[in-house]
Amino acid sequence: MSRYWSDIVSKLRPYVAGEQPRIPGLVKLNTNENPYGPSPKALEAIGQAADERLRLYPDPAATELREAIAARFGLTAEEVFIGNGSDEVLAHTFQALLKHDLPLLYPDVTYSFYPTYCLLYGIEAIEIPVDEQFRIKLSDYDRSCGAIIIPNPNAPTGIGLPLAEVEALLAAHPDAVVVIDEAYVDFGGESAVPLISKYPNLLVVQTLSKSRSFAGLRVGFALGQRDLIEALARVKDSFNSYPLDRLAQVAATAAIKDEAWFETSRRKVIASRKSLVGELDALDFEILPSQANFVFARHKSRSGAELLAALRERAVLVRLFAKPRIADFLRISIGTDEECARLVSALKEILAA
Amino acid sequence: MSRYWSDIVSKLRPYVAGEQPRIPGLVKLNTNENPYGPSPKALEAIGQAADERLRLYPDPAATELREAIAARFGLTAEEVFIGNGSDEVLAHTFQALLKHDLPLLYPDVTYSFYPTYCLLYGIEAIEIPVDEQFRIKLSDYDRSCGAIIIPNPNAPTGIGLPLAEVEALLAAHPDAVVVIDEAYVDFGGESAVPLISKYPNLLVVQTLSKSRSFAGLRVGFALGQRDLIEALARVKDSFNSYPLDRLAQVAATAAIKDEAWFETSRRKVIASRKSLVGELDALDFEILPSQANFVFARHKSRSGAELLAALRERAVLVRLFAKPRIADFLRISIGTDEECARLVSALKEILAA
Repeated sequence: MSRYWSDIVSKLRPYVAGEQPRIPGLVKLNTNENPYGPSPKALEAIGQAADERLRLYPDPAATELREAIAARFGLTAEEVFIGNGSDEVLAHTFQALLKHDLPLLYPDVTYSFYPTYCLLYGIEAIEIPVDEQFRIKLSDYDRSCGAIIIPNPNAPTGIGLPLAEVEALLAAHPDAVVVIDEAYVDFGGESAVPLISKYPNLLVVQTLSKSRSFAGLRVGFALGQRDLIEALARVKDSFNSYPLDRLAQVAATAAIKDEAWFETSRRKVIASRKSLVGELDALDFEILPSQANFVFARHKSRSGAELLAALRERAVLVRLFAKPRIADFLRISIGTDEECARLVSALKEILAA
Repeated sequence: MSRYWSDIVSKLRPYVAGEQPRIPGLVKLNTNENPYGPSPKALEAIGQAADERLRLYPDPAATELREAIAARFGLTAEEVFIGNGSDEVLAHTFQALLKHDLPLLYPDVTYSFYPTYCLLYGIEAIEIPVDEQFRIKLSDYDRSCGAIIIPNPNAPTGIGLPLAEVEALLAAHPDAVVVIDEAYVDFGGESAVPLISKYPNLLVVQTLSKSRSFAGLRVGFALGQRDLIEALARVKDSFNSYPLDRLAQVAATAAIKDEAWFETSRRKVIASRKSLVGELDALDFEILPSQANFVFARHKSRSGAELLAALRERAVLVRLFAKPRIADFLRISIGTDEECARLVSALKEILAA
């Protein structure tokens, strides 16, 4: 604590991202990156834009990208907000739409950035416990609140909510913004985007980091009716006029348009997940039903910390969350089939010892 | 105003960036971009990084870039904070370091994003009038305050403060953070970086958008003692773990290392500014003494709005600020000599009419 700090600084509990170590031959299954590269058309677009025009500011409104996303989802550009990764989109969302007199609701087991945002913006929140199977039970949200945010599928469980349940939640809270954080939806979840025209209280947040393999480029977006998007734009324009650089704008536009690449890559991940679940099951893991590009699994007799450390010794990186209910679960990103095989063989070796 | 908005949203007055129109043959002198492209080595670095590794998250701490900047300025990496453009760095600075019980001070004629940040973070501020020659008079800052922020050179006047005056300000306010916003310092100003080791209350903010020709890439940074940098890092890690994408990190690192390119480009801009000042003077403009890559000038008989419109008709874009004391001043970015010549000939035509 320093006398120079604003009061808020010492109250923060910054989010800790999964580590990005440089270990040769590492099987990196700790930050839910896509094992397949981004669309070659998007890489080509970067090559074509990486020239002296970088001396010029980018389009502050990312118009072409917003139009491409709007076309992809059957919306208008005014229903699309763009940010420097979906974490920035979420940060603006918390500040612009989730701070009210009544508390914000979100699950107790969820994306661990949410409580961090609440501290940053002074938002009162109530964590609603997931049930014993780590499922979100909608009846628990049947209470007075200022807003709700739920990832679908949830993180780090991977468990999805059926669209009918999302709609029931929207209908039950017409005066509260309901944010559905769909970072992982393309790996088997049901998107709430078709509900946007019907529900003015719905904001859907997505990212190019996972299903479009662009974690290294930092592009996320929010979809919703104009009222909600305008609130985000007002905060963004009070924070940073130009959140997306010129290269990210052209690459993201090309990636959104390359539907074939997207389809192939996400199907491969889904197929690998299915195989991996079978293998982990055979190794005595309890695996939550995942609709994401990761699985959340605990071994029936070994602790999470023990397995994490033993895997790391074998250059396989997975992630653990030091939280009461989930301390023994490993969150394992779906890699290529080769990477999954390396994980499984390391686990076999560890469990045989 | 919508029932879904957080209270803050309707109170904001978002910053309005200079327009980025697409007019063929446009001479664009409205957003202080560098007329020369970025370092070819930096463009090459982008080409080498634009591959399937973009599927992976970037280094959240931008370690190599921070080390390169630290080496360039004779600091350690712990004294360097990186952001997605200096506007993001400033936003985090306002939240982390400039909100106190006592008010923040800044000049009345200055970067117009400052009052926007104050509204965004609920910071009380007092605007200190510049004198009749639009100079910052340090004796006016001799009052009790929570913090101070001053651009040096100031924007949009271009007028610089000598280093001795900056040091006097730091010494007079040992308990207040003093931010020196050096977006334009490389075009003739005196940087406060050499004072960092002596003054724990000094934060210097710079950008790669101007003197390193990377407005389109979005990279800014802050330099200061570890205490101040830690406050910024805590806010950043509560907002967005990965503000800089992989391409921006490698390109900015290469740009910072290419001192020769930087020197050549800034010297050309300084030389063109000198010629342009002579030409404008001959056309009966009053020109404030500029140490930046723009000049701030008003004509002795024509209004700013009239000249702006007439220039625009001739495909020359400059910027005007609708603020009481400076409403007739044009802010003219320094272009290539050819672009300056186009501006001057357009002005001659307009003034002859």
